[in-house]
Amino acid sequence: MPPSPIRKLVPYAEAAKRKGTKVYHLNIGQPDIETPQVALDAVRKSDFKVLEYSHSAGNESYRRKLAGYYKQAGIEVNHEQIIITTGGSEAIIFGFMACMDAGDEVIIPEPFYANYNGFAVEAGVVVKPITSSIETGFALPPIEDFEKVITAKTKAIVICNPNNPTGYLYSAAEMEVLKQLIIKHNLFLFADEAYREFCYEGKHTSAMHLKGVDDHVVLMDTISKRYSACGGRVGAFVTKNKALLEATMKFAQARLSPPSFAQILGEAAIDLPANYFDTTKAEYKLRRDTIVKRLNAIPGVFCPNPGGAFYAMAKLPIDDSDKFCQWLLESFTYNNQTVMLAPATGFYSTPGLGKNEVRLAYVINVAAINAAMDCLEKALQEYPGKTM
Amino acid sequence: MPPSPIRKLVPYAEAAKRKGTKVYHLNIGQPDIETPQVALDAVRKSDFKVLEYSHSAGNESYRRKLAGYYKQAGIEVNHEQIIITTGGSEAIIFGFMACMDAGDEVIIPEPFYANYNGFAVEAGVVVKPITSSIETGFALPPIEDFEKVITAKTKAIVICNPNNPTGYLYSAAEMEVLKQLIIKHNLFLFADEAYREFCYEGKHTSAMHLKGVDDHVVLMDTISKRYSACGGRVGAFVTKNKALLEATMKFAQARLSPPSFAQILGEAAIDLPANYFDTTKAEYKLRRDTIVKRLNAIPGVFCPNPGGAFYAMAKLPIDDSDKFCQWLLESFTYNNQTVMLAPATGFYSTPGLGKNEVRLAYVINVAAINAAMDCLEKALQEYPGKTM
Repeated sequence: MPPSPIRKLVPYAEAAKRKGTKVYHLNIGQPDIETPQVALDAVRKSDFKVLEYSHSAGNESYRRKLAGYYKQAGIEVNHEQIIITTGGSEAIIFGFMACMDAGDEVIIPEPFYANYNGFAVEAGVVVKPITSSIETGFALPPIEDFEKVITAKTKAIVICNPNNPTGYLYSAAEMEVLKQLIIKHNLFLFADEAYREFCYEGKHTSAMHLKGVDDHVVLMDTISKRYSACGGRVGAFVTKNKALLEATMKFAQARLSPPSFAQILGEAAIDLPANYFDTTKAEYKLRRDTIVKRLNAIPGVFCPNPGGAFYAMAKLPIDDSDKFCQWLLESFTYNNQTVMLAPATGFYSTPGLGKNEVRLAYVINVAAINAAMDCLEKALQEYPGKTM
Repeated sequence: MPPSPIRKLVPYAEAAKRKGTKVYHLNIGQPDIETPQVALDAVRKSDFKVLEYSHSAGNESYRRKLAGYYKQAGIEVNHEQIIITTGGSEAIIFGFMACMDAGDEVIIPEPFYANYNGFAVEAGVVVKPITSSIETGFALPPIEDFEKVITAKTKAIVICNPNNPTGYLYSAAEMEVLKQLIIKHNLFLFADEAYREFCYEGKHTSAMHLKGVDDHVVLMDTISKRYSACGGRVGAFVTKNKALLEATMKFAQARLSPPSFAQILGEAAIDLPANYFDTTKAEYKLRRDTIVKRLNAIPGVFCPNPGGAFYAMAKLPIDDSDKFCQWLLESFTYNNQTVMLAPATGFYSTPGLGKNEVRLAYVINVAAINAAMDCLEKALQEYPGKTM
């Protein structure tokens, strides 16, 4: 089982803080946005006497409301096509385990969310990466690249849209390409749409919008980012494939039920006014604009403009992103401050890639982003391993 | 992946209820005991603004208090030896995945908690059952039976104490036998102690009380039954084996964190007065005494006196426990009432065993137990497949 590449720098950050250094956390996708009061209140005002197991697929009342939420997003599903999971993590694990046998292969455009590697190990399946490039803003790699790695063992493609770690928003045309691919090779399309509500350029195309591939598509969802409710650990596994729903329910039953409290929270959040996401999105967009502008103004730095999520990937003039991120925490301060970034190496499956790239999660406010960029700019002047 | 043998009868129970039949649920371990008010209040009175990821190992404050709880139970661990899990289920999955490779073998005395099968499938490991017998009250099978199935691939023994489904409480002497076995063959001992607080005869011997086997023992725990908080989904993976803790943290980090709300609940529950369990235990003991007495008074029925948990296994004069349990829901009523039981076949790994046994969970009050036993007594007179 591989260690989390994002969390391995934590001890260095803790050491920096003990020395009194202020650390700006751009390393992890924990939003600072407040969880909606009405959602927290639903939990705090609950009055049940026994904290019982819920249905293994989650509370029916929640699933029915969630189907209504999806309808607003143009996704037509009913509550029987939804299994509530313990975070998006479990939805992904369920998909890997229910759709694939040990030794099967899953194709994922890289850079990708590092924990897919862990889930693949748990399910005994092999990740086959297809490299996307910072030069194209991490657009979908050409279809030939997929075709090249498809074998008899290939069972699925994972697409995270908008993407973590790149922030790339796949276009309707790109989603159509994927559709043709899964039809041609009879594959599953696993769509991790954790960041669905955070699109800044154009419209989100859900895998569930694709026509004629109902039996191929699995939506893997979570309330973690949508409502800034990461600690709730509630997500959803959504598919119209009946046999797959039945198979997945066996995994759901084995672990008994998803967390009850956060199901209450998730259900209440669906009643938020239609403009709820407008405010949050405006804030994230402002942060994105700030960080992208600041990054591209630093000599030797290139950051494509991400269309969604709350991540940006940047190419830096450095020798080794792992060394650089550690150096930032261990050896650098500017006005007694430093910045914590995620080395991109952890998001690539192909060895050697990502050595001059980092991921930045803009989950801190604009003032903090500016202060963090001041640090980064200074750091890139001082870093002994700079390449220009 | 095998389906849950306990939940497969649910559609028949739902159909019976639709017909207006009152169904006494003795089939599932969902306690009716109220969750402690002080624990629920801790969640309801919480005042954080952002429902954040917790530490992947769980909140440090909770782990520190939990170490204090264990100390009271004679278990000496510190907070760094505890990983908070999503229910006891995840603690078991983590153990199976972190300690074993695909193809490895785990020995479990049968009948056993059916979901161990599912977790074994998820981890790709093979369950080797050792049969215990209702005649001895499901005592630990002789050591020779273990020795017979141990191979080079055997990596662990699972012991659930007090036992689900049998209610058997393993003695200190039996735990010593297991200790010698794991030393001799260099095995892990996975101790599922979900029902630790519910012992009615003698004292509980935790696997963590065993001396000199710190690197072999993993405690798999949960707050589900202890505080009647099944829906919280909070448990614990506890071991003094440092390498194993490190390996298990990788699995914990991949799924990010355990549920935050229920960690607050679990932490508050530790402050309950020392006599909290006395009341709950007295209630369960009364129910046990009632159900065991009523069962043994029915002609042809034998029920050993379980020393702990809230389950009883009974031998019935029937041809097939699956058919009988379904018949109870589909074709039988007494005063417009019936009873839902768990066929024991689902708890045995060896095909053919458990056909004349059922599990009864005494999670309903004494009056309801008596009414349910009235039904069962009548049903055993009427059942077409009775064997005497």
